Amino acid sequence: MAGSRKLRLGTVIHGVGGGTAQWRHPQALSDASVNIDFYKEQARKAEEGKLDFLFIADGLYINEKSIPHFLNRFEPITILSALGSVTSHLGLVGTVSTSYSEPFTIARQFASLDQISRGRAGWNVVTSPLEGSALNYGKTVEQHPTHEERYRIAEEFIQVAKGLWDSWEDDAFVRDKEKGVFFEPAKLHTLNHTGTYFSVKGPLNVARSKQGHPVVFQAGSSENGKDLAGKSADAVYTAPETLDDAQNFYRDVKQRAVANGRAPEEVLIFPGITVIVGETEEDAERIYNEVAALVSIDSALDYLGRFFEHHDFSQYPLDEPFPDLGELGQNSFQSTTNLIKRTAQEENLTLRQVALRSVTPRSPFIGSAEKVADLIQEWFAGEGADGFVIRPGAPGALHQFVDLVVPLLQSRGLFRTEYEHDTLRGNLGLPVPVNRYSLESSGTLQLQGEG
Amino acid sequence: MAGSRKLRLGTVIHGVGGGTAQWRHPQALSDASVNIDFYKEQARKAEEGKLDFLFIADGLYINEKSIPHFLNRFEPITILSALGSVTSHLGLVGTVSTSYSEPFTIARQFASLDQISRGRAGWNVVTSPLEGSALNYGKTVEQHPTHEERYRIAEEFIQVAKGLWDSWEDDAFVRDKEKGVFFEPAKLHTLNHTGTYFSVKGPLNVARSKQGHPVVFQAGSSENGKDLAGKSADAVYTAPETLDDAQNFYRDVKQRAVANGRAPEEVLIFPGITVIVGETEEDAERIYNEVAALVSIDSALDYLGRFFEHHDFSQYPLDEPFPDLGELGQNSFQSTTNLIKRTAQEENLTLRQVALRSVTPRSPFIGSAEKVADLIQEWFAGEGADGFVIRPGAPGALHQFVDLVVPLLQSRGLFRTEYEHDTLRGNLGLPVPVNRYSLESSGTLQLQGEG
Ligand SMILES: Cc1cc2nc3c(=O)[nH]c(=O)nc-3n(C[C@H](O)[C@H](O)[C@H](O)COP(=O)(O)O)c2cc1C
Ligand SMILES: Cc1cc2nc3c(=O)[nH]c(=O)nc-3n(C[C@H](O)[C@H](O)[C@H](O)COP(=O)(O)O)c2cc1C
Repeated sequence: MAGSRKLRLGTVIHGVGGGTAQWRHPQALSDASVNIDFYKEQARKAEEGKLDFLFIADGLYINEKSIPHFLNRFEPITILSALGSVTSHLGLVGTVSTSYSEPFTIARQFASLDQISRGRAGWNVVTSPLEGSALNYGKTVEQHPTHEERYRIAEEFIQVAKGLWDSWEDDAFVRDKEKGVFFEPAKLHTLNHTGTYFSVKGPLNVARSKQGHPVVFQAGSSENGKDLAGKSADAVYTAPETLDDAQNFYRDVKQRAVANGRAPEEVLIFPGITVIVGETEEDAERIYNEVAALVSIDSALDYLGRFFEHHDFSQYPLDEPFPDLGELGQNSFQSTTNLIKRTAQEENLTLRQVALRSVTPRSPFIGSAEKVADLIQEWFAGEGADGFVIRPGAPGALHQFVDLVVPLLQSRGLFRTEYEHDTLRGNLGLPVPVNRYSLESSGTLQLQGEG
Repeated sequence: MAGSRKLRLGTVIHGVGGGTAQWRHPQALSDASVNIDFYKEQARKAEEGKLDFLFIADGLYINEKSIPHFLNRFEPITILSALGSVTSHLGLVGTVSTSYSEPFTIARQFASLDQISRGRAGWNVVTSPLEGSALNYGKTVEQHPTHEERYRIAEEFIQVAKGLWDSWEDDAFVRDKEKGVFFEPAKLHTLNHTGTYFSVKGPLNVARSKQGHPVVFQAGSSENGKDLAGKSADAVYTAPETLDDAQNFYRDVKQRAVANGRAPEEVLIFPGITVIVGETEEDAERIYNEVAALVSIDSALDYLGRFFEHHDFSQYPLDEPFPDLGELGQNSFQSTTNLIKRTAQEENLTLRQVALRSVTPRSPFIGSAEKVADLIQEWFAGEGADGFVIRPGAPGALHQFVDLVVPLLQSRGLFRTEYEHDTLRGNLGLPVPVNRYSLESSGTLQLQGEG
């Protein structure tokens, strides 16, 4: 199996960056988060590098302490659709929460994006870690559901969405002008879902694209998150710190997929890696230091606080060991806060170190093109990853990755030189899901399907 | 005032058409409703004709009797955003229901579309006439709200959206790299709305575009609908059958605007007109007859039934007077069903006539370019309209309108030959709403605003 594995790559497009101060860099476009030209240019660059997809993260609550990118940025569905018009092969993956939206609406918007882009849509399912989100959705959602309940909602939500996506069999629309038959009624299916959290009749008013269903990503790494991935996701976006972590996570999720009767290659594991590429090792180091030096300790404490339910870290001494926070963080970014606590303890870090490191992670993927390519190869071959989501760690980092690292990966035979397909599933090597109703009506239809 | 009035034009893009059988026409693209190339081509044609905007209608419930276009079509937000990337001046107006969505989400998606398109977004507020919609949003919405309650929800919804749009004052983002100041906290505002239907804290995580707020259209013509328009809308999409109707409606809504302390020109009236343009009068007549002849009486009865809560009209004799339906229709398409009933009675129509006419309206705007231009001029000068929304009545109708009618309107000095602005508000001559918080903090800021 390992011999036939192919490396996949995506990139986050993240405006002024995920940290607190990248926007201050002399080369940074300080309005990038709401600059459509910046997004178009990044998308085109990603497609030039034959990347599988671009990726848009999201959040539903801000306050005055939120990081610059979160304050004022494009909403995922709208920006993906706009970028679909300026690309032809690049996958379009966006984050939408299952805790604050409706399956009919979300299934429909992704199905529509999938038709508009002719099979390039992907949905990153998240459960919304930020408790404040509930305040923007009052009356409908009375309070932020617990971590566990959020995942139960997510599971039912995805099942409903997949059901709605199958409303129309692929050959339902005959459009026979002579006979006046637009569609075959027997190939239209009404879901009639009634569950714990949702009751959705259907059918959906958009048919499947040629990739069948939008690709479902999942981005939670807790036990519940991994369960959901094993059961329902095509891909997982995760954030391990070391190869060892990555390998454990990889094995774990693949096992959960198998436990759910799926093949291990039906769920792809994508560590997000913060990348800075330099002409030389020192060059990359210099860029990293430039970026890190822009971060004030106050903004770093705010940044850290956000993961811990907006906890106020300014109350603790900076240069003493990271404080004991008890259970704080369990109900928001559970997997992330557990990792922060563990690392702080294991490496005996001070609050200042934890805070600064959280904003500007000292990622192993900072270095010369050769070094970055080597690490990617090592993680991939070592089954720590099926692919990676690039997180540009400095202005221009995506360009350098495409110009310097991609050719190395290509010359080593690790990465494509041309797109194999024009759908996201096709490029990721994921099967086109057979429509559940075609399956019912004929066992042989599976062979005739598009996948 | 009349001397300075300028004619505005928009066009519906409606895939295979709003009727039951346009898709069967030899020149029709029978998959147009999910054909992105068709939508791009129509949008480019509209921009070639210097039209103010394109318009996407919508619905949230289908069953096997729905018309072809409704069964399988693009969702408005996604298609508008995709079309934003292939146009530069054309406004992008889409329909979203206030009965089945959340103000935070919708305010955000339109604000994002507005940033992506640099000030060209418009939102057509509807309250969802179809009772079946509730079945696709079970658990959250227990049952379809009454006509009156839907409008109360809509009013609060719009207030919340407008409040969220003002979260950031226009000069809030200073982005001072040297000082490390991304924004001025005093110019970030938290809405803290608590109302009957919604409780939304804010702030919104997207700032205003240069047009301030997306343009708010409203598309209900009942008393409640007109009230809402007078109070909260920038524009109204309506469907009068005669100039007389149009003039009454026009006066009525402008009066309601004045009663709400607004200037009459702050709300623009757009009758939707079904247009077929021929080289000659006979040519147009021929096209109309071709389209009308494609409609089967069965599909016409289904079409009519949809307006009356999916009533089954096949139970009545076809060639006897239109049946007495009592109150049926009051809770769905109230203004439309009232008009159908009234016309049937006044003109003594049979069920067959009403049904066929409802699918293929014998619009006055069918004829030679000269005749269509004359009528547009007459309705506009006679204050039956500030502008029109073209509904193409046959394949190619938008092309013929742009190629044949627009030049006539231009040569008469009625319609622009170049866009005056690159925002939708700018082209429509609507003021940029001053941010409510800038107003509070300084009375003089109003003069410095973009409007
Ligand atoms: C790599 C990664 C990326 C994530 N991206 C997002 C995001 O864009 N938006 C969001 O609301 N949550 C995001 N999350 C949060 C998760 O979806 C989830 O809500 C949170 O991590 C808690 O779940 P967990 O404890 O299972 O990880 C991300 C999490 C991870 C690990
Ligand atoms: C010209 C016109 C266009 C409309 N377009 C839509 C639409 O695209 N989607 C929708 O759900 N309702 C649409 N409606 C319906 C109205 O929004 C409203 O729900 C319905 O007409 C009942 O309200 P009324 O009685 O105030 O007209 C439209 C109505 C009119 C008059």
